[in-house]
Amino acid sequence: MEKNNKNKIILIIADGIGDRPIKELEYKTPLEAANTPNLDRMAKEGINGTMHTVDRGIRPGSDIAHLLIFGYPYRKYYSGRGVFEVLGIGMELHHGDIAFRGNLATVEGGKIVDRRAGRMESSLIIPKKMTVEIEDVKFCLKPGSLHRVAVIMRGNGLTSNIQDIDPHELSAEPRRKISLDSSPESEKTERIVNEFIDYMSDFISKHPENVKRKKEGKPYSNFLLLRGAGKHMDVPPLSEKYHLKACCISGGGLYKGIAKYVGMDIIEVEGATGKLDTDLNAKIKEAIHQTKNYDLVFVHMKFADSLSEVGDFKGKKEFIERIDKSLAPILEMDNVIVFFSGDHSTPCKLQAHSGDPLPAVIWGPKEMIQTDKVERFGERPCQEGGMGHFNALNIMHKLLNISGKQKLLGA
Amino acid sequence: MEKNNKNKIILIIADGIGDRPIKELEYKTPLEAANTPNLDRMAKEGINGTMHTVDRGIRPGSDIAHLLIFGYPYRKYYSGRGVFEVLGIGMELHHGDIAFRGNLATVEGGKIVDRRAGRMESSLIIPKKMTVEIEDVKFCLKPGSLHRVAVIMRGNGLTSNIQDIDPHELSAEPRRKISLDSSPESEKTERIVNEFIDYMSDFISKHPENVKRKKEGKPYSNFLLLRGAGKHMDVPPLSEKYHLKACCISGGGLYKGIAKYVGMDIIEVEGATGKLDTDLNAKIKEAIHQTKNYDLVFVHMKFADSLSEVGDFKGKKEFIERIDKSLAPILEMDNVIVFFSGDHSTPCKLQAHSGDPLPAVIWGPKEMIQTDKVERFGERPCQEGGMGHFNALNIMHKLLNISGKQKLLGA
Repeated sequence: MEKNNKNKIILIIADGIGDRPIKELEYKTPLEAANTPNLDRMAKEGINGTMHTVDRGIRPGSDIAHLLIFGYPYRKYYSGRGVFEVLGIGMELHHGDIAFRGNLATVEGGKIVDRRAGRMESSLIIPKKMTVEIEDVKFCLKPGSLHRVAVIMRGNGLTSNIQDIDPHELSAEPRRKISLDSSPESEKTERIVNEFIDYMSDFISKHPENVKRKKEGKPYSNFLLLRGAGKHMDVPPLSEKYHLKACCISGGGLYKGIAKYVGMDIIEVEGATGKLDTDLNAKIKEAIHQTKNYDLVFVHMKFADSLSEVGDFKGKKEFIERIDKSLAPILEMDNVIVFFSGDHSTPCKLQAHSGDPLPAVIWGPKEMIQTDKVERFGERPCQEGGMGHFNALNIMHKLLNISGKQKLLGA
Repeated sequence: MEKNNKNKIILIIADGIGDRPIKELEYKTPLEAANTPNLDRMAKEGINGTMHTVDRGIRPGSDIAHLLIFGYPYRKYYSGRGVFEVLGIGMELHHGDIAFRGNLATVEGGKIVDRRAGRMESSLIIPKKMTVEIEDVKFCLKPGSLHRVAVIMRGNGLTSNIQDIDPHELSAEPRRKISLDSSPESEKTERIVNEFIDYMSDFISKHPENVKRKKEGKPYSNFLLLRGAGKHMDVPPLSEKYHLKACCISGGGLYKGIAKYVGMDIIEVEGATGKLDTDLNAKIKEAIHQTKNYDLVFVHMKFADSLSEVGDFKGKKEFIERIDKSLAPILEMDNVIVFFSGDHSTPCKLQAHSGDPLPAVIWGPKEMIQTDKVERFGERPCQEGGMGHFNALNIMHKLLNISGKQKLLGA
């Protein structure tokens, strides 16, 4: 280990921050159009670059994007989003468990009329700790936010290589043929999942709350849609992979789940909601505080992505300005290495994730960072940065190196 | 799929366009010395970069270069040039067929005196559809342009892992020992190819046209040289790999062959000869027209490469100016994403392909392209482009992403 390895790392990911030129912003991106004195100072005093989450032009989901940012190749470590969602709401998974994302939904005449049952709170229907046993298989359920329900399926001879029960479209029937091959595992998983769905649909539709709602003409649920099946596997935690003690500060469940998957502690911050009302200042304040306890503090900021997905470029610009303001206290610190970027671009005019690269900056003590000519943080200025183009899988090594925590390869 | 995916892609490859500084052009490259207002406009309004066809310093043939441009890793999908040549002149290949490029040649005293038999037209000698059967193997022949003959070898227990009959040098004997190992496949292939060569040499030398030419002291042929053996395999077409309907506009047979190999339709354009007299304007006009029918239109422009191979830098500069003029109508379009680059560099002073990288630009609607500071298209200006350095294998993903046609990886 090198001489100076006392520096802590703060890894900040602003979800979906990257964008494309927007006519109404005079062909600037929301980030370029925003007033961001703190990010600009980081760009000027730091080293900048252009980050491709997976590789050039590849369009990632947030789950795979974060695995790569943490240094985990997705081909080896990604098994399906259900795992992260289940971990993210605080359930414990064992090796081999199958995890699902679930939705309360409304089905009429065999067809889905509302995939989210009017976003009714699932906690009204599903007990805090619910288990269902079918043959030798045990299901554990926990209500998530709004209509969401996390589901664990635990037993022998099961597979996550199945299709979603959720057909992802309206007026379609829930999928019942979910096996993808004729293995005994597929056959058993399909049979028991179907029995479970029948049991749950009966349970949900007979629940007094739903009976009442239906009578009153309000949105009600009578079905449980499952998707994103993933088999939980034990992965080497960050403490083992990089000898780092790491924690996560995030409002969104998915990000907590991925962080937990790679062995981070989850720090709950009051006011961190992952929504527009989220308290970014509180998150950064807590991140600074946690550098006392952890080598790496991961901070996830969600809402720029959500605004992009509804095309609200003005809101996105304003949210980026709030992000920028929240960063001010970090720039007072003299013993942290800060990485700031996104997990993927979400161009407002596409209203979807894209494979466009992201601006990225590493900022820290003056003697530890090789600076470049970039004076402003943004998609275009960072193209000229000293880090050039790199993939997300490089981040952890860059940060370990700069902070003096990188192992020697060879002798 | 994203919201805005209506944009069509035009992929233009100017063969061998890259070069090195040339003293007589005041140390500019032919591209830098050329007057190219349209390419310069694309550079200014688009995003630029430096493309390595395979990787830094690797010197590619046109066949491997094009496979990579279309997104097919050559280690997996390249089996030998014969396949592309045979497909390129419109013959049909079945899985497992061995395809060869053939030349009419002149042999005297057992040694090759002209590898191309004075470039005499092979159609004077070889019937339009010729088949030869030896044991259980069937050969199909078709005359190509000038001295060229395409040959398919169809049968069981054959291999393409053999040397060329063509020794590629004058005064050498045609190679008869072509097997590279002692497998039964190599033994059978060598034996039958040799019988075929004997049969064909007899057929060619006894042809009245050759008898007459020899008597008159004109170039004549008496031998068939084979090279570039490749085993045809079924590859996933672009329609399957990227969900793209694609077509090819090219004068040169090789490029049509590669395009056909990856599942493109071949659009014939009158005046597209692949030679100096080729009608570039007609090709671009047709490309624009075909964006109505196809998601991706590939346009290949050959002759800058041919001029480079004879060291004609002045001619290359002029041909590049013709390319530039032909592009004007594309810049009137508001719904296309255009990629322009080469397949490899061919420095005029080397008179051969090189591993020097190529300038590249992506141009399209203003809200879809992240611009950069590049103001002029050329080897050096593009070094500062926003795409940085990339490999040809990245192109398709970049274009799918920008045009909104890229699949989501993860959730």
